[in-house]
Amino acid sequence: MTRIPVALYGAAGYGGQELLRLLANHPGLRVAVATSQRHAGRAVEAVLPQLDGFFPDLAFQSPEESPAKTCRAVLLATPHGISHRLFATLVERDPELRVVDLSGDFRLQDEARFQAAYGAQRHLPAAAADFAYGCTETNRDAIRCARWVANPGCFATGAILALAPLAGRGLLEGDVTLAQTTGSSGSGADPKPATHHPERAQDMRAYKVLAHQHEPEVAQELERLGAGGFDLAMVPQSGPFTRGIFTVASVRVDEAVDVEALYRERFSGERFVRLRPDTPTLRHVVRTNFCDLSVHRRNGRVVVLTAIDNLGKGMASQAIQNLNLILGLDEAAGLFAPGANP
Amino acid sequence: MTRIPVALYGAAGYGGQELLRLLANHPGLRVAVATSQRHAGRAVEAVLPQLDGFFPDLAFQSPEESPAKTCRAVLLATPHGISHRLFATLVERDPELRVVDLSGDFRLQDEARFQAAYGAQRHLPAAAADFAYGCTETNRDAIRCARWVANPGCFATGAILALAPLAGRGLLEGDVTLAQTTGSSGSGADPKPATHHPERAQDMRAYKVLAHQHEPEVAQELERLGAGGFDLAMVPQSGPFTRGIFTVASVRVDEAVDVEALYRERFSGERFVRLRPDTPTLRHVVRTNFCDLSVHRRNGRVVVLTAIDNLGKGMASQAIQNLNLILGLDEAAGLFAPGANP
Amino acid sequence: MTRIPVALYGAAGYGGQELLRLLANHPGLRVAVATSQRHAGRAVEAVLPQLDGFFPDLAFQSPEESPAKTCRAVLLATPHGISHRLFATLVERDPELRVVDLSGDFRLQDEARFQAAYGAQRHLPAAAADFAYGCTETNRDAIRCARWVANPGCFATGAILALAPLAGRGLLEGDVTLAQTTGSSGSGADPKPATHHPERAQDMRAYKVLAHQHEPEVAQELERLGAGGFDLAMVPQSGPFTRGIFTVASVRVDEAVDVEALYRERFSGERFVRLRPDTPTLRHVVRTNFCDLSVHRRNGRVVVLTAIDNLGKGMASQAIQNLNLILGLDEAAGLFAPGANP
Amino acid sequence: MTRIPVALYGAAGYGGQELLRLLANHPGLRVAVATSQRHAGRAVEAVLPQLDGFFPDLAFQSPEESPAKTCRAVLLATPHGISHRLFATLVERDPELRVVDLSGDFRLQDEARFQAAYGAQRHLPAAAADFAYGCTETNRDAIRCARWVANPGCFATGAILALAPLAGRGLLEGDVTLAQTTGSSGSGADPKPATHHPERAQDMRAYKVLAHQHEPEVAQELERLGAGGFDLAMVPQSGPFTRGIFTVASVRVDEAVDVEALYRERFSGERFVRLRPDTPTLRHVVRTNFCDLSVHRRNGRVVVLTAIDNLGKGMASQAIQNLNLILGLDEAAGLFAPGANP
Repeated sequence: MTRIPVALYGAAGYGGQELLRLLANHPGLRVAVATSQRHAGRAVEAVLPQLDGFFPDLAFQSPEESPAKTCRAVLLATPHGISHRLFATLVERDPELRVVDLSGDFRLQDEARFQAAYGAQRHLPAAAADFAYGCTETNRDAIRCARWVANPGCFATGAILALAPLAGRGLLEGDVTLAQTTGSSGSGADPKPATHHPERAQDMRAYKVLAHQHEPEVAQELERLGAGGFDLAMVPQSGPFTRGIFTVASVRVDEAVDVEALYRERFSGERFVRLRPDTPTLRHVVRTNFCDLSVHRRNGRVVVLTAIDNLGKGMASQAIQNLNLILGLDEAAGLFAPGANP
Repeated sequence: MTRIPVALYGAAGYGGQELLRLLANHPGLRVAVATSQRHAGRAVEAVLPQLDGFFPDLAFQSPEESPAKTCRAVLLATPHGISHRLFATLVERDPELRVVDLSGDFRLQDEARFQAAYGAQRHLPAAAADFAYGCTETNRDAIRCARWVANPGCFATGAILALAPLAGRGLLEGDVTLAQTTGSSGSGADPKPATHHPERAQDMRAYKVLAHQHEPEVAQELERLGAGGFDLAMVPQSGPFTRGIFTVASVRVDEAVDVEALYRERFSGERFVRLRPDTPTLRHVVRTNFCDLSVHRRNGRVVVLTAIDNLGKGMASQAIQNLNLILGLDEAAGLFAPGANP
Repeated sequence: MTRIPVALYGAAGYGGQELLRLLANHPGLRVAVATSQRHAGRAVEAVLPQLDGFFPDLAFQSPEESPAKTCRAVLLATPHGISHRLFATLVERDPELRVVDLSGDFRLQDEARFQAAYGAQRHLPAAAADFAYGCTETNRDAIRCARWVANPGCFATGAILALAPLAGRGLLEGDVTLAQTTGSSGSGADPKPATHHPERAQDMRAYKVLAHQHEPEVAQELERLGAGGFDLAMVPQSGPFTRGIFTVASVRVDEAVDVEALYRERFSGERFVRLRPDTPTLRHVVRTNFCDLSVHRRNGRVVVLTAIDNLGKGMASQAIQNLNLILGLDEAAGLFAPGANP
Repeated sequence: MTRIPVALYGAAGYGGQELLRLLANHPGLRVAVATSQRHAGRAVEAVLPQLDGFFPDLAFQSPEESPAKTCRAVLLATPHGISHRLFATLVERDPELRVVDLSGDFRLQDEARFQAAYGAQRHLPAAAADFAYGCTETNRDAIRCARWVANPGCFATGAILALAPLAGRGLLEGDVTLAQTTGSSGSGADPKPATHHPERAQDMRAYKVLAHQHEPEVAQELERLGAGGFDLAMVPQSGPFTRGIFTVASVRVDEAVDVEALYRERFSGERFVRLRPDTPTLRHVVRTNFCDLSVHRRNGRVVVLTAIDNLGKGMASQAIQNLNLILGLDEAAGLFAPGANP
């Protein structure tokens, strides 16, 4: 089988590196173009030694010079603010181009919501309406038919999968609390004070409390699924691990509802969502596309826990899951591999 | 000044080791007796090499043979189920003995609540009524006059300090969510699957969701402070760090209340509670007696964050803070030292 | 292609779990039998949740009841002392059975050397002579023709690959110092004081200094390759990471030798050994079969550094590399995948 | 007792922060001046929240404007290249000023050695001759009489204490291998790629192999103690912990020498050096001034292991130990406190 050539923008960031790792052995896709502003002109294997042996003929290109003409599909692992400009240029040249954008630029349909969350305007606000929101398990049918997919944020993925079964049945209302903890790779490949090892290695703290830009996309997707009259409160925390997002979602649900059965039924047949009898645990999902999940209740209080990899299901592997879908490949192609225990 | 001799039971556990560390240089207290069932007869410095040079003449005794006659005060760093038996023996011999018990045996006044939380009966249920609950900042006056103190649980300390200002003003009601994350030392000195380094080092998960034994003592203390009509939901999580508890408390409060001013006023003058403008951070409180705290709100949603050391303010250093009080010493004696940054 | 059925003994240990992970998607091999003394009768996916979805029909068997009759090959991931007994039983039943033993039972040819290293006798000392020592890159031809392979120890793999090029040219002599640091998974799946997270997480120490059982197998293999007149000193250290072995090998070499060219030439064409211009780094080889390596010199002092995954190239993936070879498959089948960066 | 006022330059770096922590409760010294180029004008407690409550009246000054007139002593925690300029200005103003410099500027007596190690010239090369090298346990008498002390490098401290007993008896000769591993705080307070948490947290690698600037100061001190005819090879490694240096020193010693007795005798009476029967372990010395040490031998090969805190005995606490000495205080004042276990 000929592997479909794909162009990857922002290939030297952590999202891009993870995409390269997953695409190195993908049965249906191959990386034809990889761009990096900073490393343009250098061999991929020299910049990213972990990939030595896998991309012998690939060099980073500048995003400007990259035509990506031979590619039917593009992955934008560029930061928000960059993606929508690249997108405009690329689709102007080829309106049939398939695009999965990993940034936040096209996730929020409503322009006011976008501007409140990102403090900026979009180049092509109208384009957002043509993007399918890429939480695969909640929006698969729309993704399959879409040309363009807005890949969800990492916190958003962990939160939506925790709450979608309730939202889909109109059971999500009132105060919803999301206490979520991310690994340090969520801050990206550039060293920052918050990811300085001597200070992060044994630490825990919060940031953007009640003010994280992923909160409105959770609200938007839950509303789309049928929820209303709920109030989200997202508390993002930083944990001393490299990869993963652990989510605690807490909500009140009528005691008459058999919540566990609801979740079991809802995720039955999903290959990448696994229900756990006790608690999900990050180490089993890290470097995979899995979301592990458990449901707990006491009287009317319901707690749902999810564990995902922020760079995997929360970013790169979900992007490939979506790209597989829009290109007509098996959704799990190149992704269905188990995690490790230690 | 002559230092007051103190007996320390359960001295080889993590709570005991931390007490020994703090008492090594305490200006008003000295360790006269240290017991350990397992290490009876061995030199303290041989069993605990980190203390080499500080207790040259001290050997572990068996708890049975220890009369502790010369000691005016006893620290019980023994597990629940053991403490109340030791207590019974010790106070029978000397009813004037000062006791700080670090276990859960005497924290809950109500016997039914105790049995529900610990799945066991107490030897001396009536004695609980004579114990002051040892959350120093919320119960200082009672502690000062008490002979016996029930030192709080680690999760409980982090939660109570987060919510006490609201409880004390009758503002705590409705659903209260506690998402708390503990370091691995909270599991004690004996190796267990949950603290096996290959599996814990980069992991995060939850345990005893909505079923942790510290939850009822939080409820009890908040009720005593004036709260009513609230429903706690505690979600304990395990993080990949050695020491510390990070607490996210979420609750709805009337928008008219100036919550930040309330907290500032409530903790004004407290030497071991520090308000932070952004977020507390574990690394600044680890190995100290401090509780760092921040308050966040959006409309009616209030989030309070606290950071403590589970073995410090959540255990050993708070026990010494209480012992200082009941012995008439400066509450901060031997405890007022800054944390490190990296 | 029909995948060759393989039996895996000791499948619930860390070596076994890693073998299961690698075999889950192996193109030429499939796990037909998995044994575990402790978990006999339980579903593999229930015991090892990270594998949920990959072995739906596999349950652990007791090693006693397992005939493994349908399997052409066996992987023994059992501890030393167990492997040689299982081996005796299995090959008595089927002398043509292909066996890769991951324990130390058949690595040392010389019985006296074995007894000195392991403090025990072997059931079948003579069998060792029929085992090929499984350091693939130094003994490939013998492995390819062997029925039975003794897979190297993790420290030994890191050390042999660092020194083989010198040994093969008769340049290894005098004092050879090996300072090696292992991750905690090397201690196995059972919790122990040395792998207790609160004590291991930020610690470093040494163990079995000048007395580790992997040292004689390094000497044996280097001698076989042509070295003589050298004196090894292995200093194993424990580091606070979960996976990996970092090796510092130090030796004096005649200044006239172009050591770097020698290494480049020696490993040219090896798919799993990569020379680095500066330093290897564990994170790039963890969860892979790669050995990354660098060479440094100043005057007559030569330092060679290697980085491998103790559970990968140092154990499970090298075992599969060897099994591929003896079964006539591509040596890299199921193994050639890049590592991740963060 | 009136505490002696001390000026601290470079107070916001990691060395400076650790000095502030140790001086917060020092019985004989107090911080009168703290400088920071970057934070000049800001309150110390606002910049360094871990110190909140301990320096209520102290603000960072610019190093230029700081007269430090009232201070009898100065601690220079400034980088090399800065220290010697500050020193020149300060001693010109007050030749009697006591100075402990934590940088590398005055450690090497020989100007050529300095330039080879640091690639730079010194402002006052001649001044180095008036500095006592501050490895307290090997140079105490000279330090006590000195006005100025050049505090050793962290790797150098761990190496010198490992080898000094041999050097002092003329037993150090031939090849000496130093494989040393440092925690991430050794890289300082500014984020760098090498201390980026996602990449450092589970990693190990080497750097400046056979080319670290601390190597010549080890050689210089060992020569001063009586060693000759030896060849050092220092291999610095980076480990995934925040604080500590673990040293493996390997050398050949005549089998007739009772090496362990030699070490026991040499360090008898030293309060901050502790011999261990098995292995030192970083966690027991971190945040202390201790050096724990063990000696191992097999035939003629001797391995000595040391564990220190790179920011403690390897930097800030040794600086205070030296400052105590030159000011006539008890050498251990403010420093004799035990470490923690977890």
